[in-house]
Amino acid sequence: VFLFYSNQIDEAEGKLSEEELHHCIHVLRKKEQEIIHVTDGEGSLIVGKIIQIKKSELKFEIIERQFKPKRSTHNAIALSPPKSSDRLEFFIEKTIEIGINHILLFESKRTERSRVNLGRLEKIATSAMKQSKQLYLPKIEYITDFKSFFKGIGSYDGRFIAHLNGMEKHVFGLIQPTKNNIVLIGPEGDFTQEEVDFAIENNFQPVSLGSTILRTETAGIYCATLLETLSQNL
Amino acid sequence: VFLFYSNQIDEAEGKLSEEELHHCIHVLRKKEQEIIHVTDGEGSLIVGKIIQIKKSELKFEIIERQFKPKRSTHNAIALSPPKSSDRLEFFIEKTIEIGINHILLFESKRTERSRVNLGRLEKIATSAMKQSKQLYLPKIEYITDFKSFFKGIGSYDGRFIAHLNGMEKHVFGLIQPTKNNIVLIGPEGDFTQEEVDFAIENNFQPVSLGSTILRTETAGIYCATLLETLSQNL
Repeated sequence: VFLFYSNQIDEAEGKLSEEELHHCIHVLRKKEQEIIHVTDGEGSLIVGKIIQIKKSELKFEIIERQFKPKRSTHNAIALSPPKSSDRLEFFIEKTIEIGINHILLFESKRTERSRVNLGRLEKIATSAMKQSKQLYLPKIEYITDFKSFFKGIGSYDGRFIAHLNGMEKHVFGLIQPTKNNIVLIGPEGDFTQEEVDFAIENNFQPVSLGSTILRTETAGIYCATLLETLSQNL
Repeated sequence: VFLFYSNQIDEAEGKLSEEELHHCIHVLRKKEQEIIHVTDGEGSLIVGKIIQIKKSELKFEIIERQFKPKRSTHNAIALSPPKSSDRLEFFIEKTIEIGINHILLFESKRTERSRVNLGRLEKIATSAMKQSKQLYLPKIEYITDFKSFFKGIGSYDGRFIAHLNGMEKHVFGLIQPTKNNIVLIGPEGDFTQEEVDFAIENNFQPVSLGSTILRTETAGIYCATLLETLSQNL
C-alpha cells in the first residue's frame, strides 16, 4: 500500500500536490472513485476516495480518518554534514526510515561542506516518512553557528557527543529511553577540543560508538538505530 | 592515519598492489623511506618502511607487527540484494564499517536482481575495512539457490528471519551475544510464506525490526548495528 502526503486536508476533503498527483495517476494509475491512503504528517492516516482528477490537482473525499498520537519521547541526531551529497542524503533517508523525527545539521570548525540544499533534504525526508509508513513529518534544521546550536535543544535531556578519543563508554549503556535523547556527531576530521569542551559545559556526555571507526553518516545511522530500538522497546 | 591492505606479505617484507600503490604515492604522496601502515586482512597491523617504489610495485620493510586475535563470536547478515546498485553498495559499506565480517547475498523468489558484481562488492568491502581500521578481511558470498543457503551456515546458532507480518518480537531482545548470530532479510516484496516456513524448519526465529517499515538495505544496517553493539559490549 502506497502512502501519500498532503498538507491540504480539511474536514471532509483533501488535495494532493502536483508531485504526489504525478505518482498517483502516472505511476500507480489511479482513477476517479478509487481509494488512496494519505497522511497529513501530523498523525492522521486517511482513507480517501478520489473524486476529481485535473491536470495539476487531485481531490479526494475523506472516507475514514485514524489518528495516531505522538510517542511521549523523541530522539534527535545532530550531525556535521559530510562533503558528499550522496552520503548526506543517504543519512537523511535511513535515519528517518528508522524513526528519528528531528535531524539537526550543524557547521563545526572542521566541517568540509558549507551549504546544504534543505529543500531537497526535506523532500528525501518526506519520501522516507511515506516509504516507512510513518505519520509525522520529520523536521530538519541547518545551523551555521555551532554555539547557537545549543540554544535550540532545551527539550533534550539525554545529551551525548560522539568523538574519537577512544576512552569513553559506549553510548548503548548510557541511553535512557524514558528521556528525549540527542547525539551530536562531528565531521570526518572530528570536533576540536574546544568544541568538545563547549558541548560538555552544555551537559553533553562524551561517548564511544564501538571498536570500529565509523564515517560521519554511518555514525548517524548507527546512533539512530540504538536510540529508536531502545525507545520503541520501552 | 591511512591503513593499506596487502595480501603479499612475508616475514620481513611486503608489497602493495597496483591499486593501493596509486593511493599511496599519488594521493598521500609517500616517498621511499617513509612509514606506512598495512594490514594483511588476517589480524596483523604492520608498520612498514617504504624501501622501493617502481611503476607498478611498492616494496616495504616490516618495522613492527602486531597481531589482534579474532573475537570469539561473529555475526552475519544475509540479505536479498535490492534492485539499485547504489543501495546494495551502501549496505555493504555500512555493514562492514559497523563490524560485520560475513555477508551473504541470496536470491529468493521475489528478489528483483538476478546478478551481483561480486568483485566490485569485495573492493567496497575491503575499502570499508581499511576506512574503519579493521584487520580482518570480510567475506561476501552470493547464493543463487535459497534452499542451499541453509547448508553453509552451520557455525551460526543464533538464527533470525526478519519479515513483515508484524506479530513477532523485536530482534533486540532475542539476540544472544555469546553466540554467532545471523539475520536473514528478504526482498522489498518480502519472503514467500514457503520461504519463511523453510527458514523456521531450519531453526530461524521470526523477528520484528521495530514499528517502521524499513527498506531491505536499511534493515541490514539496522541489524548489523544491533548485533555488533551487543557483541562488542559483552
